[in-house]
Amino acid sequence: MSDAGFDQAASRPHGHAIPRFAGMATFAKLPHTQSIEGVDAAIFGVPFDGGTTFRPGARFGPQAIRQSSRLLRSYHYGLDVQPFDDLSVVDYGDLAVVPFDIKDTYALVEEQVSVLYDYGVFPIAMGGDHSVGLPLLRACAKKHGPVSVVQLDSHPDTWDKLFGKEYSHATVFKRAVEEELIDPHRSIQIGIRSTLPYRDDLERTRDLGITVITVEELFQRGIDDVAAEALRLVGDKVYLSFDIDFVDPAYAPGTGTPEVGGPSSRQALDMLRALKSLPLVGFDLVEVSPPYDHAEITCMLAANLIMEVAGILAWQKMHGRQGGAVETTE
Amino acid sequence: MSDAGFDQAASRPHGHAIPRFAGMATFAKLPHTQSIEGVDAAIFGVPFDGGTTFRPGARFGPQAIRQSSRLLRSYHYGLDVQPFDDLSVVDYGDLAVVPFDIKDTYALVEEQVSVLYDYGVFPIAMGGDHSVGLPLLRACAKKHGPVSVVQLDSHPDTWDKLFGKEYSHATVFKRAVEEELIDPHRSIQIGIRSTLPYRDDLERTRDLGITVITVEELFQRGIDDVAAEALRLVGDKVYLSFDIDFVDPAYAPGTGTPEVGGPSSRQALDMLRALKSLPLVGFDLVEVSPPYDHAEITCMLAANLIMEVAGILAWQKMHGRQGGAVETTE
Amino acid sequence: MSDAGFDQAASRPHGHAIPRFAGMATFAKLPHTQSIEGVDAAIFGVPFDGGTTFRPGARFGPQAIRQSSRLLRSYHYGLDVQPFDDLSVVDYGDLAVVPFDIKDTYALVEEQVSVLYDYGVFPIAMGGDHSVGLPLLRACAKKHGPVSVVQLDSHPDTWDKLFGKEYSHATVFKRAVEEELIDPHRSIQIGIRSTLPYRDDLERTRDLGITVITVEELFQRGIDDVAAEALRLVGDKVYLSFDIDFVDPAYAPGTGTPEVGGPSSRQALDMLRALKSLPLVGFDLVEVSPPYDHAEITCMLAANLIMEVAGILAWQKMHGRQGGAVETTE
Amino acid sequence: MSDAGFDQAASRPHGHAIPRFAGMATFAKLPHTQSIEGVDAAIFGVPFDGGTTFRPGARFGPQAIRQSSRLLRSYHYGLDVQPFDDLSVVDYGDLAVVPFDIKDTYALVEEQVSVLYDYGVFPIAMGGDHSVGLPLLRACAKKHGPVSVVQLDSHPDTWDKLFGKEYSHATVFKRAVEEELIDPHRSIQIGIRSTLPYRDDLERTRDLGITVITVEELFQRGIDDVAAEALRLVGDKVYLSFDIDFVDPAYAPGTGTPEVGGPSSRQALDMLRALKSLPLVGFDLVEVSPPYDHAEITCMLAANLIMEVAGILAWQKMHGRQGGAVETTE
Amino acid sequence: MSDAGFDQAASRPHGHAIPRFAGMATFAKLPHTQSIEGVDAAIFGVPFDGGTTFRPGARFGPQAIRQSSRLLRSYHYGLDVQPFDDLSVVDYGDLAVVPFDIKDTYALVEEQVSVLYDYGVFPIAMGGDHSVGLPLLRACAKKHGPVSVVQLDSHPDTWDKLFGKEYSHATVFKRAVEEELIDPHRSIQIGIRSTLPYRDDLERTRDLGITVITVEELFQRGIDDVAAEALRLVGDKVYLSFDIDFVDPAYAPGTGTPEVGGPSSRQALDMLRALKSLPLVGFDLVEVSPPYDHAEITCMLAANLIMEVAGILAWQKMHGRQGGAVETTE
Amino acid sequence: MSDAGFDQAASRPHGHAIPRFAGMATFAKLPHTQSIEGVDAAIFGVPFDGGTTFRPGARFGPQAIRQSSRLLRSYHYGLDVQPFDDLSVVDYGDLAVVPFDIKDTYALVEEQVSVLYDYGVFPIAMGGDHSVGLPLLRACAKKHGPVSVVQLDSHPDTWDKLFGKEYSHATVFKRAVEEELIDPHRSIQIGIRSTLPYRDDLERTRDLGITVITVEELFQRGIDDVAAEALRLVGDKVYLSFDIDFVDPAYAPGTGTPEVGGPSSRQALDMLRALKSLPLVGFDLVEVSPPYDHAEITCMLAANLIMEVAGILAWQKMHGRQGGAVETTE
Repeated sequence: MSDAGFDQAASRPHGHAIPRFAGMATFAKLPHTQSIEGVDAAIFGVPFDGGTTFRPGARFGPQAIRQSSRLLRSYHYGLDVQPFDDLSVVDYGDLAVVPFDIKDTYALVEEQVSVLYDYGVFPIAMGGDHSVGLPLLRACAKKHGPVSVVQLDSHPDTWDKLFGKEYSHATVFKRAVEEELIDPHRSIQIGIRSTLPYRDDLERTRDLGITVITVEELFQRGIDDVAAEALRLVGDKVYLSFDIDFVDPAYAPGTGTPEVGGPSSRQALDMLRALKSLPLVGFDLVEVSPPYDHAEITCMLAANLIMEVAGILAWQKMHGRQGGAVETTE
Repeated sequence: MSDAGFDQAASRPHGHAIPRFAGMATFAKLPHTQSIEGVDAAIFGVPFDGGTTFRPGARFGPQAIRQSSRLLRSYHYGLDVQPFDDLSVVDYGDLAVVPFDIKDTYALVEEQVSVLYDYGVFPIAMGGDHSVGLPLLRACAKKHGPVSVVQLDSHPDTWDKLFGKEYSHATVFKRAVEEELIDPHRSIQIGIRSTLPYRDDLERTRDLGITVITVEELFQRGIDDVAAEALRLVGDKVYLSFDIDFVDPAYAPGTGTPEVGGPSSRQALDMLRALKSLPLVGFDLVEVSPPYDHAEITCMLAANLIMEVAGILAWQKMHGRQGGAVETTE
Repeated sequence: MSDAGFDQAASRPHGHAIPRFAGMATFAKLPHTQSIEGVDAAIFGVPFDGGTTFRPGARFGPQAIRQSSRLLRSYHYGLDVQPFDDLSVVDYGDLAVVPFDIKDTYALVEEQVSVLYDYGVFPIAMGGDHSVGLPLLRACAKKHGPVSVVQLDSHPDTWDKLFGKEYSHATVFKRAVEEELIDPHRSIQIGIRSTLPYRDDLERTRDLGITVITVEELFQRGIDDVAAEALRLVGDKVYLSFDIDFVDPAYAPGTGTPEVGGPSSRQALDMLRALKSLPLVGFDLVEVSPPYDHAEITCMLAANLIMEVAGILAWQKMHGRQGGAVETTE
Repeated sequence: MSDAGFDQAASRPHGHAIPRFAGMATFAKLPHTQSIEGVDAAIFGVPFDGGTTFRPGARFGPQAIRQSSRLLRSYHYGLDVQPFDDLSVVDYGDLAVVPFDIKDTYALVEEQVSVLYDYGVFPIAMGGDHSVGLPLLRACAKKHGPVSVVQLDSHPDTWDKLFGKEYSHATVFKRAVEEELIDPHRSIQIGIRSTLPYRDDLERTRDLGITVITVEELFQRGIDDVAAEALRLVGDKVYLSFDIDFVDPAYAPGTGTPEVGGPSSRQALDMLRALKSLPLVGFDLVEVSPPYDHAEITCMLAANLIMEVAGILAWQKMHGRQGGAVETTE
Repeated sequence: MSDAGFDQAASRPHGHAIPRFAGMATFAKLPHTQSIEGVDAAIFGVPFDGGTTFRPGARFGPQAIRQSSRLLRSYHYGLDVQPFDDLSVVDYGDLAVVPFDIKDTYALVEEQVSVLYDYGVFPIAMGGDHSVGLPLLRACAKKHGPVSVVQLDSHPDTWDKLFGKEYSHATVFKRAVEEELIDPHRSIQIGIRSTLPYRDDLERTRDLGITVITVEELFQRGIDDVAAEALRLVGDKVYLSFDIDFVDPAYAPGTGTPEVGGPSSRQALDMLRALKSLPLVGFDLVEVSPPYDHAEITCMLAANLIMEVAGILAWQKMHGRQGGAVETTE
Repeated sequence: MSDAGFDQAASRPHGHAIPRFAGMATFAKLPHTQSIEGVDAAIFGVPFDGGTTFRPGARFGPQAIRQSSRLLRSYHYGLDVQPFDDLSVVDYGDLAVVPFDIKDTYALVEEQVSVLYDYGVFPIAMGGDHSVGLPLLRACAKKHGPVSVVQLDSHPDTWDKLFGKEYSHATVFKRAVEEELIDPHRSIQIGIRSTLPYRDDLERTRDLGITVITVEELFQRGIDDVAAEALRLVGDKVYLSFDIDFVDPAYAPGTGTPEVGGPSSRQALDMLRALKSLPLVGFDLVEVSPPYDHAEITCMLAANLIMEVAGILAWQKMHGRQGGAVETTE
C-alpha cells in the first residue's frame, strides 16, 4: 500500500521525498506560481497592516498561515472532496503593497486581483488587516457589479472615519456601500459583539441596509438557523469575508483586536459548512496577527478555514450548489 | 458624521486626539482620580498576591487589566447602556498594600475601601489574589452588615488554615462566615470543580450554610436555571466575587491556580447577564496573573467582565433591578 | 481542624511541611518507587518522541505532566473517591528508551511494561508520542491476548507506512491489528477529524474492522450516546488510549499535530466519566509536547485526565464496574 | 531611618503608600501632566509605527517603557545626581498621532513638540519607530536652526525612498539633511552594521557629509575614543537619537529590525556616559517594539538609557558641561 | 569504550538506562535523600518568594534549576574535578517554608539548615528570593560565628525597612550586620549597579563597614583584580551569596528585579573561578524566577554556577585552598 | 535615486514590488531551484533532528533561518562584496530525509549532497542537528578525500556511542575520524566548554589527533590568535562546521543543548572573518532549534553567519584567499 509520509509535489530530483514539515512553505504545499491560465482558484497573501487601529502584525499573516497549512492533507472527508485535486488551485504568492500608504496599496491590490478576475480565477485572499477588503471588493465589483457580502466578524467595520481618515480596517464596509461595491440589503454580518464607541453604531450599520446578527443572537438561534437566513438573504453573487476575530480569542489569540465571548473553532467550521451552497465569487480570511499567536493555533485554524472554503468550491463543482445536505455538529 | 478613532477624554491641549492604544492606561480610559464626591462607582486595584498558594503574579493584575481595557468602547449594546456616561465612574488607582504582610494589607485595604462606602461609592475591585476578598467584605459589612455572596469560582476557598495560617486566598470565605461578614445561608458558590484535599471538603462548605453548585451541575442545569436559583436565594444586599479561574484555562490561562473543565468566556458573560437584577453592594474580579497570560486574552476577558458589571449597574439605574428580561445565549 | 496546605507524603524529618508547589515533582506527589509488590497501579513516563511526523517535544511530556500534577489534590468529588488512598498507586518513574531508535525502544518498553503486567499492576503510561502505544499494547496482549481499544484521538493512526517505515506515531494501530494485539471489531476511535492524505483513509480504517466516530458525529450524537456505543461494542478487556490532540488546541496547544475543531476540556473529562464502566486493562495519555504548551494548560489537562482514569479505577474497585450512574455535563 | 518601599509621589489620601510596581505607570512614577511652565524636561511618547519596514509594534513602546521604568529609583550614583529632583521633569503623556498617515502624524508631532521648545522644555521622546525622528528634528530646527546629530544606531536610515515613498523609518536622516534640519558635517552615526541593499550605501551617507562609525570600528577603537571624536566633531547644539537596535538583540530583542553583532547594554550605557558633555537640545529613544520583547529586558534597558540622559542633563546643570571626568567601564 | 548516553545513577531494575532528559529531576541527577551522614555537601531548595518587592516567582526557582541541571555532566575540565564523585553530594530536596509568612519561614529555614551544619554538611541553597539569605546566615553564624560575606549582586540589599517591615529581600544584609551574623569589615559586595532610592544609599552600606564594588569599578579593574581584593579582605570563614541579577538580564532574564548593564555569563563563571580559594562555609544562589525565564537560559546558568562552586569545593579538597593558579578568560 | 524597499528578484508580473518581509521565504530571497548548472554555491536545509540527545526541534531550523534571512540585504560592507551578485548562489530547498531513521537519512543526505559536489557546487547546509554532519562529510570526502575540519562548537561531539548507538549528534566526529573522512591532525575544535561525562573526554578527543581549544583558552588568547593557529594547522581543503551552540545562549537560545559562558554574536562573526582565508570545501550551520528561539534572534544570527561565509566565498573569488587583511573588532 501507499506511503503517506510525503507529497509527490514535494519530491526532488531522483525521487526523494521531503517531509511535509520541510520544504518551501506554500499553502498546503501547492505549487507557487503566477501562471493562472486554466486555474480555478488562487490563494494569495495581502501582507498589509497599515489600517490597523490596535495591534499590528497582520502583515506577517500570509506567511505564517502558509507555514501552518503544511499540516493540511489532501482529502476533506466532511465534504468528500480533495479540493486541490478536484480543482486546479495555486499559491499565487503575496501581492505587492506599500506598507506606509493605504491608498497606494489599495490601487496595487485592486489591479492585481483584477487580473485574477479577468482570468476567471476565484480569489482566496489571506490578510493582512481587514482594510484590504476594500480593494478586494473593488476588483470583485469591477467584474461582478455589486455583490452580497457575508461577513463573519466580531466588529461591524462600518465606521465613517477614524482619526479623520476614510480608509482603515474599521471603515471598510461603510466605504464599500458608498462605492456601491456591495448590495447592503442582501448582505449580512454575523458574530458582532464588541463594545461600541457610539450608542447608535449598530443602528447606523442597519441603516446602511446590512443585516446584523450579534453573537448573542447567533448563540440563541443556532448556526443552522442563522446560516439559513444568510442563504435566503443573499443575491446570486456572494463575497465571503472571514475576520479571524469572529472566533473567540481562546481559539484565535493571534489577532489585532480580539473580542471575548465568541464562537469556538468547531462552530466556525460548522458555520462555513452550513453556508456551503453560497454562490461565492470571492473570499478573504483576514486579521491573523502571528506575533500574538501561540503554538500556531490561530494560523492552523486559519489554514483549516481556508481548506473548508476550498472544499466548498470543490463540492459545488461536483454537486452543484444545492447538491445535498451537509450536517453540522450543532 | 463622527470620528470613532479617539476619546474626548484623551484629548490633549489644542484639541489633538490620542489613539485609544496610547496614553495613560486607566481602566477604559476613565479619569484617574481620588476625588469621589458624587461618584457612582470607583474601579481600583488591590495589587497584592501574598496569599497565593501556587503561582503568584496577581499583584500585576490591576495594571494589566487596565492596559487591556483600552479596547473597551463606551456603548454596551447587550444592555443598551453606556455605563461610563450613564453613571459617574472613575479609576481610583491602586490601593496601598504591604507586599510582605497580609494582616497589614488587610487593615489598609479595609480602611481605604471603607472610605468609598462612606461616600456611597460602589467599589469595583481588581485583584490581586482572592485573599483580598476578606478586607473588601469587612469594609462592605461595616456599611451593610452581613451580605449575601455570589461567588463565581472553581475553588470553594473555605479551608480553615493553610500552613497553620488563617489568612490566604484559600480561607477567605471561611473567615468571612466566622466574622459574620456574610450570610452563608443566602450565599452561593457556582462553578466549583477542583480536586479537593479532603473527602469532606464540599460537605464542610455546605455545613457553613453556603450553597455549592459544581461545574457539572452548572452544565447540566444551564446558566439561566442556576442564575435563577441564585437570584431567589440571595438577600437584598449582594457582594459579587468573580475569581477568573471560574473560566476554563483555555480562556483564562493567566491565573494562579487554573482548573480545567470550566465554562467558556461566552458562558461567563452570560452568567453575569443572567444575574443582572442582583442587588449589588460590591464587586471584585480577582486572580488575574499576567505573567501567565498570553496575548492579553485573560486580561481582555477580565476587562469585559468588569464592563458587564458596570453595564449592569447602569442598567439597574435606568430600569430598576427588575427592569426587563435580558436573554443569554445559552 | 486540619491543615490543607501540604502533603503528609511530602513532610520532612522533624515534621516540617513542604508546599505542594515545591519538592520533588512526582505525579500528584505520589511516592517514586520501583517497588511494585501489592501495587494496584503504576504511573510512568515513556519519554520518546522519535516517531513524530511534525512537531517533536513529547519526550518532555512525562516530566511536565508531573510538574503540573502537583496541583492535584486527593479527593475526586465527581466520583466520590480518593484514588491514591482507595488504591495503591505509585510513580514508577520513566522507562528506559533509546531516543534514536524506535525498534530498540519498542523492545525496552515492552519488556519493562511486561514486568508491571506480571505483577498485576495496572499501567498508566504518560507519553511520549503515540508510537509508544505499540509496545504498550504488545505487553498488554502478552498478558491478556487481543484486547479492545478505545482510542480518543483526532487522527486514525492507521497508516501503513511513513517514509517507507512501518513504525511511527501514525501507523501504530495498523500494526496493532496486524500483530493481533487488538480485536478491531471490538475497538473504536472517537473524535477523528484531520484532513487525510488519501481519499480512502477512513474506509481503510473501517476495513480493518475498527469503528470510527468522527468529531462531527460525536458533536451531533452527544457524548453519552457515543460512550454508550463504545460500552456496548467493546469486549471484556479494554485498553484506553487518549491522544491529547483529541481536545481542541485552544485547550491543548502543547501537542505535536494539533487539529482544530475538537472537543473542550470539559467534554473530554465528561467523555472519560461516561466511559467509567469500561473493563480497563491499560491506559496511556500521549502526545503532550511541553515546548508548545502555554502556562501549563495542556499539562494540567493531562494531569486531570489521568486523575479521572485513576478515579475510575478506584470507583470500579468500590462499586464494581456497573456501580451506578455518573452524569456528565452534556 | 527612612523607608524605601514606596514613593512619596505615589502616596494616597491619608498617607498610604503604594508599591512601586503598582499605581499608574508614568515614567519613573513622575507626575503626569501637560503643565510645563518652569519644567526643565518633558518625557513623552510618540506612539507611531507606520514607518516600519519590518516588524511593527513600536506604537506600544512608550507605554511599555513606562511600565518597566517603575523599577527606576531616584538616585544615579554614577553621575551623583537625582535627575528628577535636581531637575523639574514631567511625564507629558503621549502625543497625538494618526496611525494610518505618516504626513498627518508628522504635522501633529512637530506642532506638539514645538510647544515644548517654545516653553524652553527639553524634549525626551520615546518612540515609536525612527520615522518620528523627522518631526522631532523639524521642531528642534525651528527653534535652534540646523543642529548636530549624534545617532546611535545599527542602520544609517539615509535611504532616499522606500516603495517610492519619501517618509519612513529608513529615510529620516536623508530628509533631515535635505530639509537643512541638521548639519551633516557636524553629525555622526555610531554602531552601523547592517547588510545594505546597495554597494554605495555607506558612501552615499558619507557623501551627505555625515561621519559613519561602523560597529567594527567602534569595537576596535573603543567607546572612549569614538565618543571623543563625536565630542570634537559636533557643534554647540546636539540632538541625540538612540535607536535601540544599536544594541545587540540579545540585550534588546524587542525591536523591529534587529541586527546581530552589536554592543552590550553595558557598552551602550558607557557610550552615553562618555558623551555626557554633549550640548544637548533634544533626545529620542526609538524602535522599542514590546511584542518582541521578553521579560521586559528591552524596555528596562530603554528606561535606563533615558535615565542616563536625564542624569546627564542634571549633571550638566550642576557641573556645567565640562564638569569633570566620568569614567566608563571599558 | 563506554557509553555516555545515560547515568548509572539513573538506571532502572534490569540494567536499563534512562536518558538524562528524563527521570526524576534532581540536581544533576544526584540521589534525592535526607540521609546526610557522611555527606560533604547538600544541595537544597528554599522555595520562598514572599520577600519580593517586584516580580515574584522565585518560589519555583529550585525545581526549575533542577530541571535545567540535567544537562550537567560529571567532569569539570576547568578545575579538573568530578565534584559529585570527588565529594559526597546529595539533593536534599526543598525545605519547608510558609509561603505567607516570612518570620515563620525564617524560623523553619534556620532550623533545617542548622541540621546540615550540625552534621558538617556544606549547604548549597537554591532560592527563593534573597530574603532567604537571612536564616541561612543565622544557621551559619550559629555554627561559625560572624562570617565574611562575598555578595555577587546588582543590589546592595542593605535597606533598613520596606513598607515599614524589617524583613524582605532588600534588607537582608542590614539585618545580618545588626544581628552580628557577618563581619561587615571583612565582607564585600561586587557588581552593584541599580539606581537607588536615596542619595546616601551606597554611603550607608559602606558605613556598615561593607566594601562596595560597583559594576563600573568591576569592569574597569577587571575580574582578577577585584577577586584578589576580595580574597585579601575576607576572614577565614566566608559565606558566598550569588544573586542571579548580578548577571546582565540578557543572560538571566528569569529574575525578579533585573538590572541592565551587568556582566556576562562568562564573566560570572570567571569571577567564581577567580575566587576559588575562598574558605567557604556556605553558598546560596538566589532570585531565579522561572516565569520570566526563556528557553531555560537563566536556569541553565544557575545550574552551571552551582556546578562551579561544587567544583571549587572538590578542588579545595584535592589541592587545598591555595592549590594552584586557575586562569580566567579575562 | 534608487528605491531600496524591495527586491528585483521578488517582483511580480507587471513590475510590482513585494516587501522583503513578504513573499516566499527563500534564503535571502534567493531563487529557489534545483537547477545547479553553473551555480557557485547552493544553500539547502537538512531538516533532521533524530540524532538529538536533549531538546529536539532542529528539523524546523532551515525554514526558520530562511524566514529570518529576509532581513539580509545584498551588500556586505565588511568584506566589500555582494555575495549573491558576485557569485551564483541558489536556495536549493530542503533535502529528503527520513525523520525516524538516522541511517536512511544518512544515505539520502550523502547521495543528494554528492550531486552538488559532482556539479562543483559549494554546499552550504542548514541543519538539523549536528548528526547530519556525518553524511555531509561523507559526500565531501568522496569528492575531496580526507579534509580538515574547523569546528566551532561548545561540545566535542566525539563520543563513541550513545545508548549503544554509533550515530547521533554527539558521535559525529568520532565516526568521521574512523571513516577517514577527515584528517584529525589538521582539524581543530574551538569554543569547547561543556561539562563532560568522563574524566578523559578531552584527552580522548586529543588522542584522535584533533586540536581542542576550550572557550577559556579562546578568551585568553583572543580570536585573532586562535584563528591564526587554525589557519596554520589546516590542510588545503577545509570543511567548516558551525554549531550555533558555540555562541552563548543569551545570543542563541534557540538550540538543543545550550552551554552558558560562550562568545557573543560579535565574537562569532569576528571569528568567521578572521578565518576568511580558509580553503573551504563545505560548510554547515547546525543545531538551530526554533521552538526555543525568541523574537528570531537565534535565526537572525544564523542567517548572518551564513551571509558571512557566503561573503568569504565571494571575497576569495575576488581577491584570492590571501587577498588582504580583514580586521576584526577584537
